[in-house]
This record gives sequence, structure tokens and C-alpha cells, in this order.
Amino acid sequence: MTYCVGMVLDRGLVFMSDTRTNAGLDNISTFKKMHHWEEPGERSITLMTAGNLATTQAVVSLLDERTKAPDDREPSLMAAPSMFQAARIVADTLQKVIQKHSRSGQEASNAFNATIIMGGQIKGGPTRLFLIYPEGNFIEAGDDTPFFQIGEMKYGRPILVRAYEPTMSFDEAMRLLLVSFDSTLKANLTVGAPFDFHVYEADTFKIGHTGRIEFDDPYFQAISVGWGDALKTALLSLPKYDL
Amino acid sequence: MTYCVGMVLDRGLVFMSDTRTNAGLDNISTFKKMHHWEEPGERSITLMTAGNLATTQAVVSLLDERTKAPDDREPSLMAAPSMFQAARIVADTLQKVIQKHSRSGQEASNAFNATIIMGGQIKGGPTRLFLIYPEGNFIEAGDDTPFFQIGEMKYGRPILVRAYEPTMSFDEAMRLLLVSFDSTLKANLTVGAPFDFHVYEADTFKIGHTGRIEFDDPYFQAISVGWGDALKTALLSLPKYDL
Repeated sequence: MTYCVGMVLDRGLVFMSDTRTNAGLDNISTFKKMHHWEEPGERSITLMTAGNLATTQAVVSLLDERTKAPDDREPSLMAAPSMFQAARIVADTLQKVIQKHSRSGQEASNAFNATIIMGGQIKGGPTRLFLIYPEGNFIEAGDDTPFFQIGEMKYGRPILVRAYEPTMSFDEAMRLLLVSFDSTLKANLTVGAPFDFHVYEADTFKIGHTGRIEFDDPYFQAISVGWGDALKTALLSLPKYDL
Repeated sequence: MTYCVGMVLDRGLVFMSDTRTNAGLDNISTFKKMHHWEEPGERSITLMTAGNLATTQAVVSLLDERTKAPDDREPSLMAAPSMFQAARIVADTLQKVIQKHSRSGQEASNAFNATIIMGGQIKGGPTRLFLIYPEGNFIEAGDDTPFFQIGEMKYGRPILVRAYEPTMSFDEAMRLLLVSFDSTLKANLTVGAPFDFHVYEADTFKIGHTGRIEFDDPYFQAISVGWGDALKTALLSLPKYDL
């Protein structure tokens, strides 16, 4: 499985992804699921993937190859005039990769599926965040739905729904995301640390603060331990039920 | 869908179930999913069901009919010498009902499935809580896993994992359960109020405090509104992330 979240804030975008992949429960590996394309001062695009690893790696490699020799290849992410066009390129690539393998005589209809969160900014437009489906269509985040989750989204969703604010600082968003990831980690073995993150500040048009948070990172451990106590205190602050 | 939780506390058992059933998203109804059998001073058994409504109603009706004329029918819940034997009776009944319909030529292999939480106490034994699978086997709650959830369990699980304590009072357990149910309600349309509950006090051998909490119940509304603020305060109490 996988857990990735992309979030739109007033001051930019925040991305976080786990790194665990599994083929069954007895075969787990660590792969980076977050990828960046950048032309400083002009565009910054971030992509996070969930689903079949062969599919997502093929999509990322295809997108990557095109950016390196844009002249004699299909439209590339580095040449897309807008984030919407960039999303179309990713979506078309994803759809083609899935179709290629689905038509190879394989039976498992969903086995090659993948879902992608893509966000960033291209000069002349605002920051935008998309959720791209394996069918090659996609939706965009808006004021009512300002974040997307892919993979094992349920355990970590309640805290996002309750505590997200568009006016959050990046530090606050990182804290919120780590709590959401910690709740997921505690419940599903197929989501695992380390976590990759990217904090993109609006109108900078370059990759912002990126990094990787290991399971034994002191801050993450403080969040993980502290959150249990904080939740208990929160419960106690609610009015008592009277049987 | 459904959401039910059964919980073992030092002082007894707490059960809570939602009441929404659905056949698709455009066809929802309200059904009670919690059922009781009692012989005051001798036994109290509570059952909560998730899954195919025809299956679960058939199971409950079969169990119920047997208790009314125990002499000329199969072993009944009212005659079982222990909670373990009572669980076997429920499990066998569940398995038979599912098999009957699965063998009718229907294709959908899981369509008739159901899962049951059963708990209570029979004189001479301790309080016990079981999770019964559609295959007719079951597991029992223990110190390490002191509660069971069935149905849409993911959204409401993190708070249970973090805040459950075996030494909780019944009032505290009700508050915890309502927060867990509220988180689930907010995320999944196929879980809905009102919620039925049963608080069984150990060694009383009778149905304890039961009731139904409506969506517009003032206490539930206070929990629902207050929990968002309490969570935000809890987040703020954690150390800040420093990018």
C-alpha cells in the first residue's frame, strides 16, 4: 500500500509520501514515491504515486525521458504551458502505461492500476493540485476540498478533516501531516517510514524545502508519543457522558 | 455499511452500533443491529451484526426462535452452558445461513457475508467478547486486543487505539465511542445515526443500561462540535516542526 497527501495552503503546497511498497505482506521494500521536475524561476512540479510500482515507475521514467530530449519526443512536463496541460500529459502517460499491460492478456483488471497526486506552479498561473485517476481523467483541489490523499487514506483522514486550515503555516502543516501519517502507520503495516516531503512556497517557481523523515527521527518520535497523550487530554476536555 | 464496536473494560462490556443499512447509495434504511438475550440473574448476551441484512436478520431470527421453544429445537443461546458455547451456536448459525444462499446458484461470493460481535456473561464464567467470521470461526478479545470493530472500522480506529484504557469508567467509554462514531459518520455516508448502545456491568447477569442516541441529541452534538476544537488544541500542544 501507500499513503501520500498533497495539500493546498494559502502560502503554497505541501506534499508528503511514505516509502513502503509491498508484494504481499512478506515482501516489502522501500521506494521513493515523490518526484520533482523543476526549471528554477519558471516551474516546479511534484508528483506522488500510489499503486502498481511497475506502472508508476514506468510513468515517471517516461515523463523523465521526455524532459531530457524534449525536441524529438511527445509533449514534456518541462514544456507544458500550464499546470492543467502538465496534468493532461501525466494522465495520458498513466493511461497508456496501464492499457499496454492490461492488453497483454493478463486477467487481473486492477492489478496495473495507479493513482497520482500532482501539484506545482508554472509561471503565469497559480499553484494547482490534481488527483489523477488510472483511467486518465483527473480532478483539481478547490476551496472545499483543499487536499488529496491516495493509498491507505482512511486512518489518517479524520485529523486532516478536523484540523486543516488554509491559513496554516508550513510548520503547522508538517506537524498535522506527521500526525496523520503516524495514525496510518500505527494501523496499517503496508504504510511505512521514512516519509519524503516537499514544501513549495507559492510564486518561488523552484523546488522548496525537501527532506526525508526517518522513523527514529526525534521530532517524529516526539509527535508519535505526544499525540496519544494529547488525544487523551482532548477527550477529557469534552463534556462527560452521564449514563 | 455499518459501524459497531464492542469493548471489554475492567468493569464490564460496552457495545455501540449504528443503524444505517444501504443497498447502493441511493437506497438507505434504518435497522437496529444490536440484539439482546437475557435471563436475569443468570445470563446476558448481546450481539451486533454487520454485512448482508438478509443474512443477519435470518441469523437473529433463528437464534431467537430457538430460545422460545428450546425443548424441541437445536441448542439455544438460553441453554448454552458458557459464552464459548454460545459463540459456537451463533457461529454455526451464521455459517449455515450463508451457505444456504451461497449454494443457491448465486455468483457473488461475498454478497451474503456477515460478521458478528457477540459478548456477555453467563453465570459461572467471566465477561467475554467474540468476533465471529462468516466462515463460522471466531476469535476472542484479550488484554492485547480489548475491543472489536466491524464494518467501516478505519476512520474511528485511531482514537480507540490511542485513548482506550481498560480502567475507564462507563461514562468515559461512552464518550470515547461517540467520538469514534462521529469521526466515522463524518467520512462515510453509509454509517449513520441513531446509535444504539448497551453498557453491561460485570457480574450483574442482566441487560444493563441501553438506549439510542439520535443525531440531534444535544450531548452528541456537543461532542461532534467540541471534538474539532479539542483536536486543534491537541495539535497545538505538540512541539512545533521547524523546517
